[in-house]
Amino acid sequence: MFQSFDEIADFSQSAARVARLRDGLRADGIDGFIVPRSDEHQGEYIPPSAARLEWLTGFSGSAGVAVVLDESAVILVDGRYTLQVRQQVDLTVFEPVASADTSLADFLKREAAGKRIGFDAWLHTAGEERKLRAALESVGGELVALAANPVDRIWNDRPAPPAGRAVVHPETFAGRAASEKLADLAKAIAAAKADATILTDPSSVAWAFNIRGSDVSHTPLMLSFAIVRAKGRPTLFVNPAKLDAAVTAHLADLADIAEPDAFEPAVRGEAAGRAIGLDPQLAAGRLSTIVEGAGGTVVEMPDPARLPRAIKNAGEIAGARASHLRDGVAVTRFLAWLDRQEPGTVTEILAAEMLEAVRAEHAEQDGSALKDISFDTIAGSGPNGAIVHYRVNRDSDRLLREGELFLLDSGAQYVDGTTDITRTVPVGEPTSEMRSRFTLVLKGMIAIATARFPNGTRGVDLDPLARIALWKAGCDFAHGTGHGIGSYLAVHEGPQSISRRGMAVIEAGMILSDEPGYYREGAFGIRIENLILTEPATDIPGGDIAMHGFETLTLAPIDTRLVETSLLTSDEIAWLDAYHGRVREALGPRLDADDRAWLETATQPLGKPAV
Amino acid sequence: MFQSFDEIADFSQSAARVARLRDGLRADGIDGFIVPRSDEHQGEYIPPSAARLEWLTGFSGSAGVAVVLDESAVILVDGRYTLQVRQQVDLTVFEPVASADTSLADFLKREAAGKRIGFDAWLHTAGEERKLRAALESVGGELVALAANPVDRIWNDRPAPPAGRAVVHPETFAGRAASEKLADLAKAIAAAKADATILTDPSSVAWAFNIRGSDVSHTPLMLSFAIVRAKGRPTLFVNPAKLDAAVTAHLADLADIAEPDAFEPAVRGEAAGRAIGLDPQLAAGRLSTIVEGAGGTVVEMPDPARLPRAIKNAGEIAGARASHLRDGVAVTRFLAWLDRQEPGTVTEILAAEMLEAVRAEHAEQDGSALKDISFDTIAGSGPNGAIVHYRVNRDSDRLLREGELFLLDSGAQYVDGTTDITRTVPVGEPTSEMRSRFTLVLKGMIAIATARFPNGTRGVDLDPLARIALWKAGCDFAHGTGHGIGSYLAVHEGPQSISRRGMAVIEAGMILSDEPGYYREGAFGIRIENLILTEPATDIPGGDIAMHGFETLTLAPIDTRLVETSLLTSDEIAWLDAYHGRVREALGPRLDADDRAWLETATQPLGKPAV
Repeated sequence: MFQSFDEIADFSQSAARVARLRDGLRADGIDGFIVPRSDEHQGEYIPPSAARLEWLTGFSGSAGVAVVLDESAVILVDGRYTLQVRQQVDLTVFEPVASADTSLADFLKREAAGKRIGFDAWLHTAGEERKLRAALESVGGELVALAANPVDRIWNDRPAPPAGRAVVHPETFAGRAASEKLADLAKAIAAAKADATILTDPSSVAWAFNIRGSDVSHTPLMLSFAIVRAKGRPTLFVNPAKLDAAVTAHLADLADIAEPDAFEPAVRGEAAGRAIGLDPQLAAGRLSTIVEGAGGTVVEMPDPARLPRAIKNAGEIAGARASHLRDGVAVTRFLAWLDRQEPGTVTEILAAEMLEAVRAEHAEQDGSALKDISFDTIAGSGPNGAIVHYRVNRDSDRLLREGELFLLDSGAQYVDGTTDITRTVPVGEPTSEMRSRFTLVLKGMIAIATARFPNGTRGVDLDPLARIALWKAGCDFAHGTGHGIGSYLAVHEGPQSISRRGMAVIEAGMILSDEPGYYREGAFGIRIENLILTEPATDIPGGDIAMHGFETLTLAPIDTRLVETSLLTSDEIAWLDAYHGRVREALGPRLDADDRAWLETATQPLGKPAV
Repeated sequence: MFQSFDEIADFSQSAARVARLRDGLRADGIDGFIVPRSDEHQGEYIPPSAARLEWLTGFSGSAGVAVVLDESAVILVDGRYTLQVRQQVDLTVFEPVASADTSLADFLKREAAGKRIGFDAWLHTAGEERKLRAALESVGGELVALAANPVDRIWNDRPAPPAGRAVVHPETFAGRAASEKLADLAKAIAAAKADATILTDPSSVAWAFNIRGSDVSHTPLMLSFAIVRAKGRPTLFVNPAKLDAAVTAHLADLADIAEPDAFEPAVRGEAAGRAIGLDPQLAAGRLSTIVEGAGGTVVEMPDPARLPRAIKNAGEIAGARASHLRDGVAVTRFLAWLDRQEPGTVTEILAAEMLEAVRAEHAEQDGSALKDISFDTIAGSGPNGAIVHYRVNRDSDRLLREGELFLLDSGAQYVDGTTDITRTVPVGEPTSEMRSRFTLVLKGMIAIATARFPNGTRGVDLDPLARIALWKAGCDFAHGTGHGIGSYLAVHEGPQSISRRGMAVIEAGMILSDEPGYYREGAFGIRIENLILTEPATDIPGGDIAMHGFETLTLAPIDTRLVETSLLTSDEIAWLDAYHGRVREALGPRLDADDRAWLETATQPLGKPAV
């Protein structure tokens, strides 16, 4: 199994660890220390060796930051984790703070006036570092870059950095040769008037070199840095234990390979008297300091792999379609199985395990077998469904009971594509409130799926379409509508998103999720999620200007027992019926007779009542 | 009449003036000069003495900037003015450039490498100045603040600065005493850790001191600066010729009065050793230089009058409702009159004059007579309707002909409120294309009017709702959906707007326009505009969170002959019918029998076909 359910909140060591951390800080004359969740690649996906925040606090969420001061300690988390953090941390040691109300900079301004606050400059971007420094200095404090991370000094059994084996990502699936991609990066670097740039995001390294790794859970990353130059071969800094002969041969054609220890000296050497491009939102602040310390100039430029990686090419799009067809068969088989179980007989963990097993049953063809799940399955029944990023464990596990909703958000890593799908199903008879809220969420999902929009439209310009039906009912959901997704890469990938902060233009070739939701704390959660591919809209007769639209990639029935048809417009009903027709046609021939019969019923059109 | 139609494009002097300007620049060793449309208050509303851009180029639009280099000259304008600029400027002298494609900073980077470019630091905000300086320095150029504006040196018949008479704005209409507002400003200044701030926006001065002036057309501004302090009385710098005894007495209770010439020395004196708050988006860069030159510190803070001015109080809201009722009667009388005229008998100018005359006919009650129009009426028939900011003149004037649309965007200044309304009407029989496009625009307008949204929603989060129906038909409009509006003040007022750039949160009490449109160049223009007041939404049963919504203030029929009912949802039809019911009930008793009968027909419900 790719998912383990044994982890439980364990903050029993937290007080002692914080006390030891404070001793170390005091000895160094430092008044406090910032512990972010990030590693030196600033990614969402970190190895156990970088899980300092979890080790210190017990909090296992994917985003958050702790600040340990002499007399107090806080942990700042976003809206997804307000419930979870209170279960996972020792509340006598850490006070949880909502990051929506108080940013880290605000907190430092308020609580660290006149103090010397330490930080690890590998774990913060240059942009963040600048903000924190300004905040502290505005109240007479000081931000101090510490030479060694004081958490590491007291973390005796800290795991070794991962050395997972890497593989070549075949050009069939990558859609382009790595040599071509690297040539494009070199051009982008020259255009930004830089001599070189540093790829710090392992997703960028994986994309640019057509390799995949196994250093972190559920995301095929090979943790590494690369120096890419406007002229000359790139240098890739990677532990050779990760590379077998095939990967070594593939990489040797593209780049010089060096040990991770050689990275910092190499940056110094590269920088002297030259212009080094760094992405202020992605690269560690430490890199700016190294470049400037070596007599180089920092040129602020976006990671040049970020946008081309987001805009999928024809090969990647073909893979996305194929992987979604395969994943849709598995999800539908699971949904049919679940529907045959009696209420009160299936637990959240059993459901998650069964779904993973069905996905794993897919017979290998051309490397198409399940490589991993794309994130820990969110399987929330009843009140657990209202915890947006709920991760079931043996303590929280519960039976799916009559009259409840069950929210299942899961995804798969196939070599030709990454999937991410959420379905919400009733266990037994749903209430009319559940049905009306589900229908409002569905209206939002359809509004995005059917949107057409001109060149230059950003994610922020689409987000409200997913919310207006809920808003009119006095409801909302406290997360973005959609995130970008990689091609056999990270399930959360920038720069595109559909959200209040989505300032990236949505371009043809980008894949996004479309996942509005509704959560009633202590009662139930609803989310419906399809992945959508941005394409030129060719179906508008008589229009003035070119438009874009979305093709829905995800194929699995949406539970019509939760749909209150009277709340839908005729266009919305037509969309749902057409979608279900597509699902039936695509998946039906790939199911056994029982599941096919179940799908027939599940995808019955709303527009024409069943005979 | 408040509107003159005699102005015509006159660029006959442009080449000679640019030549003289170049001579002056050469003598000073400067390679170019930037001529923005702004005055030292950075406002949209400028007096003739500050109309340097128009004097030099002939361009009379409300936004734009020229750059005169040694060998070339450009004028950058936005999408509203791309057609107009080509008619108004000498194309052998100035090359028009779309500011959407090339910002001023981009232009300087591209065309002014290594050059010394002069500017007048009174005419650019500190934020702009910073951007332009960085752009020029990045290409080895230099931005040079000139001691005297070189346009003024060659502008022999430059008009004197205006000295329009000011009046006290009665507390009944202002809703709050000036002394209370000034006390709140003092608190805001202290909260920003500043000793004083400078109000540079004449709208802020008018609002804070409860005065109105007559220095510019159509907006009751008294051009002046004020220093407002965290402690102690404000100082207002204003030409005493503007103040009669009553105004002088009113102001003397609130502030010290000083001559405009005393302003710069006073800022110097104020700044020495103190912190001066300046709004980087509103205050001239020159003020930062003065403050820093005098040994003061600039604290960046928003103009503290901006947000409270935007959030209308109960007195202002009552005035808005009263002025809209009054204005609705006038607009409806005009629409009824227009509908009785034969196609081919009314010109655009006649229509605009008639509308102004009807507005002016309102009998004075408690100072409620028309004070001015709130901007030059946009009266565009046929192809002129497609020019978004069309201003009719004797040359462009044309008859409203059979089969055309007529777009009329106008507003009034009453002492209790500023109005702004657009109606589009058919002349004779409209085409089915006109009807379907009109209906899509109407859907967008209704989507905003009926929106509900949670706390924290910004204008950018509402804008797409006005566009999605057009987008689905392959259409869009190249302007924002709505702007803020003052209370007997500027017809365009920040910080709120409903647009791609609308980052201000929409709060209860804010008044905005709701005005989507559709423009087919060379054929017709459609815009429907109502003003809307933001309010808590109290009509949502069973919602989870507090919502806001809008009350429509504008009262005048929307032409149902242009509505294709089959394109509307039942909710949209219900909204339009209810709105027309409100209009009929409010205006009917205030019209004569003929106009009342016309209104009865015009507001016939779509939901129930006429008998």
